[in-house]
Amino acid sequence: MTRPVRIALDAMGGDHGPSVVIPGAALTLVRHPDSQFVIHGQESLCLPLLDQHPQLKAVSTFVHADVAVRMDDKPSQALRQGRWKSSMWRAIESVKKGEADVAVSAGNTGALMAMAKFCLRTMAHVDRPAIAAMWPTMRGESIVLDVGATIGADARHLVDLAIMGSAMAQIVFDIERPTVGLLNVGVEEIKGLEEVKAAGRILKDNAFPCMTYAGFVEGDDIGKGTVDVVVTEGFAGNIALKTAEGTAKQLAGYLRGAMSRTWRAKLGYLLAKSAFDLLRDKMDPRKVNGGVFLGLDGVVIKSHGGTDATGFATAIDIGYDMVRYELMSKIRASLDANIPHPGAVARGQETQA
Amino acid sequence: MTRPVRIALDAMGGDHGPSVVIPGAALTLVRHPDSQFVIHGQESLCLPLLDQHPQLKAVSTFVHADVAVRMDDKPSQALRQGRWKSSMWRAIESVKKGEADVAVSAGNTGALMAMAKFCLRTMAHVDRPAIAAMWPTMRGESIVLDVGATIGADARHLVDLAIMGSAMAQIVFDIERPTVGLLNVGVEEIKGLEEVKAAGRILKDNAFPCMTYAGFVEGDDIGKGTVDVVVTEGFAGNIALKTAEGTAKQLAGYLRGAMSRTWRAKLGYLLAKSAFDLLRDKMDPRKVNGGVFLGLDGVVIKSHGGTDATGFATAIDIGYDMVRYELMSKIRASLDANIPHPGAVARGQETQA
Repeated sequence: MTRPVRIALDAMGGDHGPSVVIPGAALTLVRHPDSQFVIHGQESLCLPLLDQHPQLKAVSTFVHADVAVRMDDKPSQALRQGRWKSSMWRAIESVKKGEADVAVSAGNTGALMAMAKFCLRTMAHVDRPAIAAMWPTMRGESIVLDVGATIGADARHLVDLAIMGSAMAQIVFDIERPTVGLLNVGVEEIKGLEEVKAAGRILKDNAFPCMTYAGFVEGDDIGKGTVDVVVTEGFAGNIALKTAEGTAKQLAGYLRGAMSRTWRAKLGYLLAKSAFDLLRDKMDPRKVNGGVFLGLDGVVIKSHGGTDATGFATAIDIGYDMVRYELMSKIRASLDANIPHPGAVARGQETQA
Repeated sequence: MTRPVRIALDAMGGDHGPSVVIPGAALTLVRHPDSQFVIHGQESLCLPLLDQHPQLKAVSTFVHADVAVRMDDKPSQALRQGRWKSSMWRAIESVKKGEADVAVSAGNTGALMAMAKFCLRTMAHVDRPAIAAMWPTMRGESIVLDVGATIGADARHLVDLAIMGSAMAQIVFDIERPTVGLLNVGVEEIKGLEEVKAAGRILKDNAFPCMTYAGFVEGDDIGKGTVDVVVTEGFAGNIALKTAEGTAKQLAGYLRGAMSRTWRAKLGYLLAKSAFDLLRDKMDPRKVNGGVFLGLDGVVIKSHGGTDATGFATAIDIGYDMVRYELMSKIRASLDANIPHPGAVARGQETQA
């Protein structure tokens, strides 16, 4: 029998805290009976809920935490007030200590990233972490990273993102060499930012075995699903993600408006609504559940704060898969095989540029 | 009586050339009888069409041009082969020579911008040009700039964009102090790129009379219509525009797919289709007709290449408004009043950063 997957949970994270986290964990346990949990949270709130899920309770360790990071805490505030003692910190620390393989929290992104960086540090060969988002496309789904962990990226970091995103895509899409595109403003090689062009040269020249480099892609290629992995620095990635969210909401709002004018239109809207709502939900970053923090010395999954038990279970499931199919070893293997060379090339090219 | 608005047209630009440009001009003339035209194109193709529009012919000067810039010409190619002699160049040159007040072309964006920069040069106090796009929002429309004229921007250029975008918004929306937001990854002042933060400080501290500075906005604020003018450098602006296009297409495609499964859904789709198509058209950058080139010493309007006569007339109309309501004087007045100070501040702050 394989080793169980040990999952640390920040039970106090998110808008609904343990009332979503604990039932969510119970759902994951049904799908993945080889899961075990370390649940960090306030005893008085968590234990009664755990009692309602005896099967979950049987495979869980509960650890009381006095402090909960609030959804509106700034990262610096959260670190100051919540380090060592908050449920969020301790979930991450469980990974650090080797008590768990992955930490999952629905707490606020900035605080979670700040704590994860502070506690786990970045992995060898990687300078900065990234957040990878699952992005629904016309072909299915793609991975887009970085969607806002850090601002700006040199060629070396973009290559790191390509390698880490490929490793995640190998697991999520179960393909050996996912296609990778660099987000740019044109498909001609003369266009775009210097660092994107330099990263493109490195990816092209090195032919990394973990991916098929597909060249530059543009903003509209994300929704088309042109590639499995879209690589961009965090500023543009965050703007792309939020612009897509805004457009989806705008289209939904506009349709509602247009559809409420006549009985004919109202009927059409009612008939069309469920399909439209489904996509809007899929496009809504609040529902894209399970942002994966990459580049840290441990796996951390961010669930949307407003999600329900089903959504939280989706985030835990992603964490489960990342552990079961060995995200960290895959990334390390790719980095060890590849980075000494591209890193050197990247730095050389940047100096020359 | 007011002075006529003299409009130079590149009759050979776009997928359909004179067969769209000339009927388009005729449409504008109906709406704006005080228009006059200088039409540049191939005689054998244009004159028969002009004969079909005698009222247009009566207020037009026709100038034969041997060369037409192709839609797939690279900017450098277009400059090499089309400078001095192409219809695109000559339309721009009409503005340079003072024979026309504005040039309108449906030719390719890169070539048009390269020629416009080369021929007109940037205006005093402005280092680099920008492309301003009209963006349909839940509140109506907003102006987003730069959507891809140049890559990267220092604080000074972002302030220039805010000033030029405000001047355009004063005309398009007929308001005295349009609201302006800087596109960023978070609304907290601590977030984002150094140059965006520096531009934010300048806009806040200077309280320019041509605008109401509204602070940072995020990607989803564009579609919401949170501000009249969204300012960003060209890389992020282009990615935002194309991502929105991709999302709109994706939603339309997904809806079509979902709607074709059952009779009930098919009926709903048919009933809902017209309203949905309308918004998709509005969101499609190919239909956002009339990108305004700002920061050059003259007004140039880019129409989408694949548009029809109605669409091309929309682009000419935008050009007409920019001249009639004095875009260039408005920008110059704002720049003269404001730029010596913010320019100095911007450069100082960048040096300190």
